[in-house]
Amino acid sequence: MAMANAAVAGGSAGTAGLAATGLPERTPGWTLPQAYFNDPEIYRRDLERVWKTGWLFAGHTCEIPSTGDYFLVELDTESVIVIRGERGSLHALHNVCRHRGSILCADPCGHVSKLVCPYHQWAYDYDGRLLAWRGMQPDLDKADFPLARVALRETGGLIFINLSPKPSSFDAAEACFGPLAKPQGFDRARVARVADYLVKANWKVVWENNRECYHCNVNHPQYIKANFDHFNADDTTPRIREEISSVVARSEARWAKEGLAPSHTDTGMTRFPDAAGGIWFSANRTPLVEGWVSETMDGKQVAPLMGDYPDAEVGTLRMRALPNFWNHSSCDHGVSTRLLPMGPQLTAIRVWWLVAGTAVEGRDYDLEKLMPFWQLTSEQDWLICERQQKGINSSAYTPGPYSTFKEYNVEGFVQWYLDMIR
Amino acid sequence: MAMANAAVAGGSAGTAGLAATGLPERTPGWTLPQAYFNDPEIYRRDLERVWKTGWLFAGHTCEIPSTGDYFLVELDTESVIVIRGERGSLHALHNVCRHRGSILCADPCGHVSKLVCPYHQWAYDYDGRLLAWRGMQPDLDKADFPLARVALRETGGLIFINLSPKPSSFDAAEACFGPLAKPQGFDRARVARVADYLVKANWKVVWENNRECYHCNVNHPQYIKANFDHFNADDTTPRIREEISSVVARSEARWAKEGLAPSHTDTGMTRFPDAAGGIWFSANRTPLVEGWVSETMDGKQVAPLMGDYPDAEVGTLRMRALPNFWNHSSCDHGVSTRLLPMGPQLTAIRVWWLVAGTAVEGRDYDLEKLMPFWQLTSEQDWLICERQQKGINSSAYTPGPYSTFKEYNVEGFVQWYLDMIR
Amino acid sequence: MAMANAAVAGGSAGTAGLAATGLPERTPGWTLPQAYFNDPEIYRRDLERVWKTGWLFAGHTCEIPSTGDYFLVELDTESVIVIRGERGSLHALHNVCRHRGSILCADPCGHVSKLVCPYHQWAYDYDGRLLAWRGMQPDLDKADFPLARVALRETGGLIFINLSPKPSSFDAAEACFGPLAKPQGFDRARVARVADYLVKANWKVVWENNRECYHCNVNHPQYIKANFDHFNADDTTPRIREEISSVVARSEARWAKEGLAPSHTDTGMTRFPDAAGGIWFSANRTPLVEGWVSETMDGKQVAPLMGDYPDAEVGTLRMRALPNFWNHSSCDHGVSTRLLPMGPQLTAIRVWWLVAGTAVEGRDYDLEKLMPFWQLTSEQDWLICERQQKGINSSAYTPGPYSTFKEYNVEGFVQWYLDMIR
Repeated sequence: MAMANAAVAGGSAGTAGLAATGLPERTPGWTLPQAYFNDPEIYRRDLERVWKTGWLFAGHTCEIPSTGDYFLVELDTESVIVIRGERGSLHALHNVCRHRGSILCADPCGHVSKLVCPYHQWAYDYDGRLLAWRGMQPDLDKADFPLARVALRETGGLIFINLSPKPSSFDAAEACFGPLAKPQGFDRARVARVADYLVKANWKVVWENNRECYHCNVNHPQYIKANFDHFNADDTTPRIREEISSVVARSEARWAKEGLAPSHTDTGMTRFPDAAGGIWFSANRTPLVEGWVSETMDGKQVAPLMGDYPDAEVGTLRMRALPNFWNHSSCDHGVSTRLLPMGPQLTAIRVWWLVAGTAVEGRDYDLEKLMPFWQLTSEQDWLICERQQKGINSSAYTPGPYSTFKEYNVEGFVQWYLDMIR
Repeated sequence: MAMANAAVAGGSAGTAGLAATGLPERTPGWTLPQAYFNDPEIYRRDLERVWKTGWLFAGHTCEIPSTGDYFLVELDTESVIVIRGERGSLHALHNVCRHRGSILCADPCGHVSKLVCPYHQWAYDYDGRLLAWRGMQPDLDKADFPLARVALRETGGLIFINLSPKPSSFDAAEACFGPLAKPQGFDRARVARVADYLVKANWKVVWENNRECYHCNVNHPQYIKANFDHFNADDTTPRIREEISSVVARSEARWAKEGLAPSHTDTGMTRFPDAAGGIWFSANRTPLVEGWVSETMDGKQVAPLMGDYPDAEVGTLRMRALPNFWNHSSCDHGVSTRLLPMGPQLTAIRVWWLVAGTAVEGRDYDLEKLMPFWQLTSEQDWLICERQQKGINSSAYTPGPYSTFKEYNVEGFVQWYLDMIR
Repeated sequence: MAMANAAVAGGSAGTAGLAATGLPERTPGWTLPQAYFNDPEIYRRDLERVWKTGWLFAGHTCEIPSTGDYFLVELDTESVIVIRGERGSLHALHNVCRHRGSILCADPCGHVSKLVCPYHQWAYDYDGRLLAWRGMQPDLDKADFPLARVALRETGGLIFINLSPKPSSFDAAEACFGPLAKPQGFDRARVARVADYLVKANWKVVWENNRECYHCNVNHPQYIKANFDHFNADDTTPRIREEISSVVARSEARWAKEGLAPSHTDTGMTRFPDAAGGIWFSANRTPLVEGWVSETMDGKQVAPLMGDYPDAEVGTLRMRALPNFWNHSSCDHGVSTRLLPMGPQLTAIRVWWLVAGTAVEGRDYDLEKLMPFWQLTSEQDWLICERQQKGINSSAYTPGPYSTFKEYNVEGFVQWYLDMIR
């Protein structure tokens, strides 16, 4: 066990250069040292190197259908307004007046005709341009005081923002998400319900939990009924292999003609992320188990078909983007999850349930049938994360080994993360 | 906009020497950089250089009419007992026993026959002298263990304390406040009600809000009905100028013979503070708008005349002292406001409503009519302050320009503050 | 009074070497400087030098009678499982899985058949040995991943643990506690009730309070009726001396034949700790006042006799161990108190009431009669501690002198403490 704490002689792709940054060394294949999960300095570094450089999932276009509709995205001390402008345009702006610094919007979402500061009524256009500032001296020029803009990209009804002044390209992510998301119809959806959580765990604890299904058997009794990804190379029995082959074959036959062919056709989780390739996003379509058409408690459809789906047997669409987004969508509803860091050991998590935009609650769907599958599965995970964070804080915590069968994606996440902050 | 963040070549009265102290530079005429509002080290410096050197408003003499009456003043980790001693004397003492350090008084106000420590009953006189200490060895001398004294001055019924071992002179402040406060009769008043607030904002945010009426039009619908100071050089119309001239002329005619002549006779706020002159206190009398005799919801008198006032038409008395006091008083009631810092982003604020000492609630006045004007105006401001603090905490906050028409007193406050902590 | 803050020329047993450590100097016979009570760095040092080297009281053997019964001990960020293994064995293990670091047990006490991590079901034996880890690669060896063990010793039904990898000897403490605790029958007792408190005071404030009865006269009206230790050399009158001699003589006559002779036979508290001798534990038997057989509100027996006691007139057994334990036991019940630090100004305190294992609530005893004496006395002390902490935090706090008559044990505690952290 000496290896767990030893410096790695000669380094490796996963750790080379960590020592030079003053960050604790990690042994490849093993969990991160404690400081990565609770040190305020490393948390500051995470904010600068990950959260202020990466593309962050903000929300859905269907949440702000009309000009002047907005919602806020708040992480740590940042507050960003995502707003629908004229002619369908979308803008992201820092929620900070250029005069005395007051926030402009206090409500988490709403509708405005202009962005007017509640303090002295400086008024900004939807794109951040300063329109009016009663009482200011004439030698100042309004053009010098726009709201600070935040980069924004939309694809398939999903809105991403980027706090960096020089954001990396979003094009490859759009090419990945767009075609798969389009038939789901997020742009024509409506939000059936939102649940907000404050989870007492570092954001990386939440991701590590998300990146393996090693914990699913005991912790997620609902989830494992519907899916194949808790089986891995070490425990996929011939019977399981036969089952997945059968549903894949049937899915391929049906979906190919609709352009909905499954792209993940094995047990186990699809490989993501790929630190070596710099891949922080991915999406795929995968079948559910025989007899299940939706991720609901009994596998039955619970709401009208969404988007362009011809029938219910379309498996599930899955999307994910680091550092803060994943989505599981069935024929009749989609579930988006967004993480936002609020402190070294605190993560704000929002879960959305979306249905077809024309669906009416009580008539076309009931929340009692729509929500439990992912509400239970999500809350099971948050509890796990808080227990893990508590143990990590102990002086007795030492890095442990990842299962090469089951935690390959956790290792991938850690490599991606270390590349980001190095 | 490069100017907002640029270092000031050559310096200025407002910023010269800031760099030498390690404090962030400020551009004159622009708001302070973020660190002044949330950095714990600058907060510590504020405590040492401002709060532990300045004269702090503590409360009113009428709150402790009898020997042994006391109230506590608590800021950050300090606790001070303000107590009425023998023959009308007033004392301020640190609320810390010289034995093991226990606080002596736990209740925020009350009456004691001696100051007896609840732990081992060491007993002190009202002036802090140690009177008794059962069980201590005879080679120690009680005279060596008085309570730590805090400087105290009273003027016109207002009590100020100073935590410095070598307090600056209070004489000029007394000369300013005394004659104007005397006719209001604070020394013969009674407290009708107290409201306590914990505002999530740096204390300077609260002062900057107080030092301009640029925000009044939209935020203070009650206040602007009664007053002229939300009009400034850029927006005082001939009609407004005529109105104020008319009420001033009438006031001068009436009040001169009573020694109550208005001293602020223009629209806009009186200039305060004056950093160059070292003026941290000021007071003036100013007329209300035609038809208003009191700062109440409809301008009508709601309680018996206070002090020496001959009739209701005495305009308003206004007093202010940095870093923690302001008061607005009408013919029938006075409202005092006291700030006390509790953290870098937390300020404890108390507002008092005072009426004539002989007034009886229910018979002579009703809280429902007495309180709303200043309760609403105060709470409108606290909300503004919390929104401003939130925006300032964002990485997108950058200093903005003050209106030379409307925020001259905010600039004056910032200059005074920077002089204090430099 | 210059002495209170002066550096001690030449040093002394109590302070020599403090300056070399960077810790604030203390004047012998005077209270500690402020930083010892609220500085986060000194708190970290207390954890390392005191709490992670000393033997800590954990609980009672009777709380975990059967194989698989456990309870948690949590201090600061540490969590320790104390568990009953096979054949009566007892084990203490860090509550941290060797895989991803999750805590194993989330409930504060309970029963398990194995220690199974709720995350991925790694399963450990009662002694921490890893038994099973489904899904891990075969090149890893389970023997390399036991739970981190914590030293544990039991004596007379009392369980102590030690977080140090090289714990100091417990033998002398066992020799002290064992013979005195045995007749009380803690090993055959049952817990009638537990009360948990979070006291806003540094742990040393709580101990200093415990180490003198100077505060008892006014603060503990119940306690002083039953005991002699609030009298000291300066105030033990001839009448009091006669009283204690009388009860001691009678006690000696009765108890000698039972092996229960009193070992503390004077007024005042027994001397403890002894820094020079390195003594961090002590126990003694002492008489109660005439007419009292139990520390209850009226001195009457309120539950069946415990352990081996032949009758009710056995005075009280008292045990104490630094840094976290004291116990007062009468013929019919025992009361244990345990401190655990949760922050620089926060201490978790648990108080247990124990009775004979065969006693049945409602039939043999009532909580209404069993609890008040020590519940009141304890809560009186916690209030004192919070008031002292508040005063110590003031800038006006300066060290004060201990009474040589009444606070000799507080001085002893401080000397012991400074020896530990130096």
